[in-house]
Amino acid sequence: MFDRARELDAADPLASYRDRFVLPDDTIYLDGNSLGCLPKDTPARIAEVVAHEWGRDLIGSWNTADWIVMPQRIGGKIAPLIGAAPHEVIACDTVSVNLFKLIAAALTMQPGRTVVLSEPGNFPTDLYMIEGLERQGLAQRRLAERDRIAEALDGDVALLLLTHTHYKTGEVFDMAELTKAAHAAGALVLWDLSHSVGAMPVDLDGCGADFAVGCGYKYLNGGPGAPAFAYVAQRHHDALAQPLTGWMGHAKPFEFLDDYTPAPGTDRLLCGTPPILGLSALEVGVDLIAEIGVGRLHEKSQALSEFFRECLADRGIDLDLVSPDDPKRRGSHLSFAHENAYALSQALIARGVIGDFRDPDILRLGFAPAYLRFEDMAEAARHLAEVLETGEWKRAEFSERSAVT
Amino acid sequence: MFDRARELDAADPLASYRDRFVLPDDTIYLDGNSLGCLPKDTPARIAEVVAHEWGRDLIGSWNTADWIVMPQRIGGKIAPLIGAAPHEVIACDTVSVNLFKLIAAALTMQPGRTVVLSEPGNFPTDLYMIEGLERQGLAQRRLAERDRIAEALDGDVALLLLTHTHYKTGEVFDMAELTKAAHAAGALVLWDLSHSVGAMPVDLDGCGADFAVGCGYKYLNGGPGAPAFAYVAQRHHDALAQPLTGWMGHAKPFEFLDDYTPAPGTDRLLCGTPPILGLSALEVGVDLIAEIGVGRLHEKSQALSEFFRECLADRGIDLDLVSPDDPKRRGSHLSFAHENAYALSQALIARGVIGDFRDPDILRLGFAPAYLRFEDMAEAARHLAEVLETGEWKRAEFSERSAVT
Repeated sequence: MFDRARELDAADPLASYRDRFVLPDDTIYLDGNSLGCLPKDTPARIAEVVAHEWGRDLIGSWNTADWIVMPQRIGGKIAPLIGAAPHEVIACDTVSVNLFKLIAAALTMQPGRTVVLSEPGNFPTDLYMIEGLERQGLAQRRLAERDRIAEALDGDVALLLLTHTHYKTGEVFDMAELTKAAHAAGALVLWDLSHSVGAMPVDLDGCGADFAVGCGYKYLNGGPGAPAFAYVAQRHHDALAQPLTGWMGHAKPFEFLDDYTPAPGTDRLLCGTPPILGLSALEVGVDLIAEIGVGRLHEKSQALSEFFRECLADRGIDLDLVSPDDPKRRGSHLSFAHENAYALSQALIARGVIGDFRDPDILRLGFAPAYLRFEDMAEAARHLAEVLETGEWKRAEFSERSAVT
Repeated sequence: MFDRARELDAADPLASYRDRFVLPDDTIYLDGNSLGCLPKDTPARIAEVVAHEWGRDLIGSWNTADWIVMPQRIGGKIAPLIGAAPHEVIACDTVSVNLFKLIAAALTMQPGRTVVLSEPGNFPTDLYMIEGLERQGLAQRRLAERDRIAEALDGDVALLLLTHTHYKTGEVFDMAELTKAAHAAGALVLWDLSHSVGAMPVDLDGCGADFAVGCGYKYLNGGPGAPAFAYVAQRHHDALAQPLTGWMGHAKPFEFLDDYTPAPGTDRLLCGTPPILGLSALEVGVDLIAEIGVGRLHEKSQALSEFFRECLADRGIDLDLVSPDDPKRRGSHLSFAHENAYALSQALIARGVIGDFRDPDILRLGFAPAYLRFEDMAEAARHLAEVLETGEWKRAEFSERSAVT
């Protein structure tokens, strides 16, 4: 399969973008869905922000370096990746904090309804942030398996909160269909795009979505703990109200008034002072993904993961795929169930193939299309096959779990 | 006064620390209370985090570079600056978001009481975050002028929320006395230390304080929009409950469970994924301030501002000081009321003396003791005197206000 891999790489229109990222030697990085790689432009940009904007120009950079509009500017750049208008998206805080704001905002818009519907096994922070509002007495969390969501959408449901691409299985919800079903039941919809944005086109406006959040440090390559983003459909801007009413979301923050008046539109989602270092790194990642284009990235993502499966099949490896078989129904990672998934993932890491493990039994391999080659697929499949054939994953050092996986 | 200034600088035990900061040429930076200067060690540290920890070691750095414990490690380093035990402090999110968590936590601990008492003119985000909980129906905001706070502490007050050093006047509350008064009324106390931490010793544990928050980008020199911190007294750790229940505050985040169980103590204040770039810069600033020592910084801070006033007096300048006359009763900045404060501040900036303006009529000059010289005081006083004497502040370019001031 290596010859075939080299042919595919030679024909890959995105092949040259690999050189725009730092990729460690002797490593096949299949964890860009957890922490994206470092764009080569990022170190110089960060050094400039630190040395000149902060070090030399100091407080003046809020104006002269336009720090003050970074949340809006970067949000506006993320917008076309997710089918939104620029003013519908703002970069700020974390996915978790933005979930809280938007769940609370949705509840405020839905008098008489308190249920927030999601699915068991959704990414934990999504479920926990509903619980936070539940403990405040403002929400009731309801969980329904994904094939029972439609019937769980009754007249009590204020908001349907789903993760577009599942963090573990990679399965993608039909955004248009579920948004329509929720609206038919009088519910609003909040989409968590953390495992979608930057790896595939998303069409929030086209699907009539109400709210969305997403992560900056996965396929957007914004760096560890990068700021997140939030989306609110234009039609909700006037009614938008959220409880984290910090000074940067005020209509006139520099008048230092005692009473809060919300800024227009998504600006009112701002809370504290924007994190300039994190936003600066995020912007480089977003610019690069926008330059490559999410349509092309999606095509390559599907081709990579399908080729990886071919390589496994070619070696006679038949692992239990828990991701959808159809690449159109999944995101940019593949998950396999294996009773020794943790030890397998550690044995692969020892060989320089970085994937990850998700409790209780999932080996998750991500195929970030911006910087991976088809040759990497063939090589990763070879390592996985050898790890399984030699049984080296049974060695003691691979089976003891570390704190963070 | 320049001779006297040089004598004072020669005798200053902190003089050598100036060289540990980047200070722009031809600038006297009197705004370290808004954005602290860049420590010289920061660029290399950030470059290392970006190039090696992120770029080379990627996802593994959560373990190998100890990213996962940065909030606790940096919190532990801030702790001795504010009279706290290491496990009582955690670095995370923004001041605004941390205010929300701790106001909500206090309300949960005070069944039957819903009033959050503060003062009019407190820093706006403090007041607005109370309003956020008020709009959720969980709090009632009550404002009392600072000389009427004691009498406003009735049986309805769940929490007294005050900023230790006032952002505008610089006046410092008596933390011990007001904490005692609040407790006598059955109220808890939350101190905002944003304009105190790093410029003076604070003794939260000694005063019996309940909660505190503080800013990383002022006297801690953590960089623009640096992460903030939160403090919770040990005695409240078991009862601590806050609504921003994100995955990083879970007892077992990497088991990815559907239901939230809080992590021990202040760890449960974590919400989303920690911002590693921002935390890395913050740590350098905290390490440097801890090395210098807040006791010595406080002494120099008082000496600097008193010397500045002497220099003004020596030039026959009599401005309307709105800060307390006694340096023991104020923080590390001086504020002067002047009907043309904005134009004055702009005229000073044009001369390289960077202070700031606060609505409606305040010229605010900060004296960050870690990197300012007595000579800077004499020079700043000379510029201010000349600006006033020449009337150059009346020129049109100085009177038109920009968006951020």
